[in-house]
Amino acid sequence: MSKLKFKILKQRWNARVWEIELNWIKLTTPVFMPVGTKATIKGLFLDVLKNEKILGNLDPIKLILANTFHLYLRPGDELIKKAWWLHKFENWEDGLILTDSGGFQVFSLGLGKDENRDKWAHKVDIKLVEDGVHFRSPYDGSKHFFSPEKVVDIQCNLWSDIMMVLDVCSPWNSDKETLYSQMQQTHRWAKRAYDHFMKKYDKVKWVLFPIVQWWTDLEMRKESAEYLSQFATDGIAIWWVSVWESKEKVREVVEFTTPLLPNDKPRYLMWVGTPEDLLHAIEHWVDMFDCVLATRLGRHGVAFSGKWNINLNNAKFKEDFNPLDDTAEWLKNYSKSYIHHLLKEKEMLWWIILSLHNILYLHKILENWKRNFLED
Amino acid sequence: MSKLKFKILKQRWNARVWEIELNWIKLTTPVFMPVGTKATIKGLFLDVLKNEKILGNLDPIKLILANTFHLYLRPGDELIKKAWWLHKFENWEDGLILTDSGGFQVFSLGLGKDENRDKWAHKVDIKLVEDGVHFRSPYDGSKHFFSPEKVVDIQCNLWSDIMMVLDVCSPWNSDKETLYSQMQQTHRWAKRAYDHFMKKYDKVKWVLFPIVQWWTDLEMRKESAEYLSQFATDGIAIWWVSVWESKEKVREVVEFTTPLLPNDKPRYLMWVGTPEDLLHAIEHWVDMFDCVLATRLGRHGVAFSGKWNINLNNAKFKEDFNPLDDTAEWLKNYSKSYIHHLLKEKEMLWWIILSLHNILYLHKILENWKRNFLED
Repeated sequence: MSKLKFKILKQRWNARVWEIELNWIKLTTPVFMPVGTKATIKGLFLDVLKNEKILGNLDPIKLILANTFHLYLRPGDELIKKAWWLHKFENWEDGLILTDSGGFQVFSLGLGKDENRDKWAHKVDIKLVEDGVHFRSPYDGSKHFFSPEKVVDIQCNLWSDIMMVLDVCSPWNSDKETLYSQMQQTHRWAKRAYDHFMKKYDKVKWVLFPIVQWWTDLEMRKESAEYLSQFATDGIAIWWVSVWESKEKVREVVEFTTPLLPNDKPRYLMWVGTPEDLLHAIEHWVDMFDCVLATRLGRHGVAFSGKWNINLNNAKFKEDFNPLDDTAEWLKNYSKSYIHHLLKEKEMLWWIILSLHNILYLHKILENWKRNFLED
Repeated sequence: MSKLKFKILKQRWNARVWEIELNWIKLTTPVFMPVGTKATIKGLFLDVLKNEKILGNLDPIKLILANTFHLYLRPGDELIKKAWWLHKFENWEDGLILTDSGGFQVFSLGLGKDENRDKWAHKVDIKLVEDGVHFRSPYDGSKHFFSPEKVVDIQCNLWSDIMMVLDVCSPWNSDKETLYSQMQQTHRWAKRAYDHFMKKYDKVKWVLFPIVQWWTDLEMRKESAEYLSQFATDGIAIWWVSVWESKEKVREVVEFTTPLLPNDKPRYLMWVGTPEDLLHAIEHWVDMFDCVLATRLGRHGVAFSGKWNINLNNAKFKEDFNPLDDTAEWLKNYSKSYIHHLLKEKEMLWWIILSLHNILYLHKILENWKRNFLED
């Protein structure tokens, strides 16, 4: 039985607007979820996402992400549980939290592809077994083990509203045989996670999403989508189409995959976060998105803006006293010249302003799309 | 004629509460001014200082600092003037700004004592002449010249509400003869700055403060206080008692100097920023304070708190789920455990929370003192 309630506000062709309700919080989809990996969205008081003066006529943001792998290691899910769970710990008590499973972070320790890990991590190895995956902490080298069941338990300790199952993340250049066998293992893990969740946590109002992946291999996508749909009690995620792939390929995979998923459950497209990719995906049955791009671009001095992003490091903005976006009242207070100055001086307010702008930019794109869609 | 209007709300012994008004903005003294050196208080949207939800029953903060030297070099006072002045540039349109003269920053290039300058700066020299001081930019080595008149003009370009005169800052270990001759030069500069200001800017509602310094030499303090008082049309500053000196010595100098100053003008004690030093000084005729300590301690993970500061780096806070201060509503949302976690993860929200806390802590000390003083 579905715990996540939904009401169809409008549905047409391959697009839809739903009102979903979970743990007494309602929001409308499609929705962009800002990323708060380590229990913070870099530099932002989370309540700014609900601040009417900042939002203007936009709805408040009610759903953000956090990362199971990072929070399990630091400060630890048991500690967060003692802090009355993640919502209270990070001051997000009247919002919803989605946690990813940590699968990508663990497997990327082995892949050597995670740009954010420290030097020690390059010596880390992982060991994949049927039961789960052994790994060492990139922080201190301590030994750890993730199983599908354990990752559900960790997410429950965090009090994640929407959890992800642990999946095997294969290197993109694996041979077909390896990919296929790891897909089958991922399916077995999804069943185990689901059984564990249903047995132990069926009574609580949390939900668990399986994840459909397997690169651009459409046969495997199909098999995986069909198999995993049985565990999509409340929703399902699509992953690994947005990394190292062309935009066209990503779109092809999205268009291929979404019709294979249960039509009456939300679909969450992971790691998609450019304005144009969002607009494409919502016309192809996608309801939820996350991406670090908004805050990461902000860190590098780049703002979403119309057709081309604006790089505020550029000297041409030195004396540009116009705001980045004159449709956002709060942003009118900060000229491009001022943000350029902050960047040059490494004054961290630049990052804060641009991260907030970029998050709200994606939020606004979806809000405006929804309003037009509903009125149309 | 005084441009800064004031009304004595209460005066007793050596303490007083005034309502001062400048450029149609009113505030009560004594007042702590947060430091926004480079047109930003590190990590804070300036409007947070006026945010009722954050302030609770405290008055808004209406007066902050900026630095002439830094803003002259980057982004340049002419640029800031084009941006409709500093108030608009940094989004502080309904508040007041005090700028220091940049004297300390220039002379510290020669002293080799400024911890914040980059390596290039160690090769920089300065050349003091009667007319002013030649120096090279620590950013790019370009040549510059500050005179008392020019520093007034720069501050006017910024649209500083309260300006400081350029003074000669002598190394603390200079011989008496050098100190005395540089004091006399400082006096000549103060007269020049004042004459220039009165001639060129008398019509505008900006004010200029001379600065009384000269270490712990009480004779020179006396001579300087007496001489400079004639230029204290709207207020006067006391400086260089708080660096490399014991608390007792600082207090001795403050207690000695303030009675020598005009009694009907605000006195601004520069660089004093611990709770106990503030409380001492306001009982000895001091009305205004600034100090980077509040934000600098925040950066290092330290919070003002009662008798002893709290260092949130300490592992004992790992599972301390209490707030730093349960009298501040906004701060109840962030436990010590959470701030400790942010610090360990170098997540910049720690700095933002602690800077804001420390600024508001000093603000609250003065606000509470004022209320008690007025009711008493």
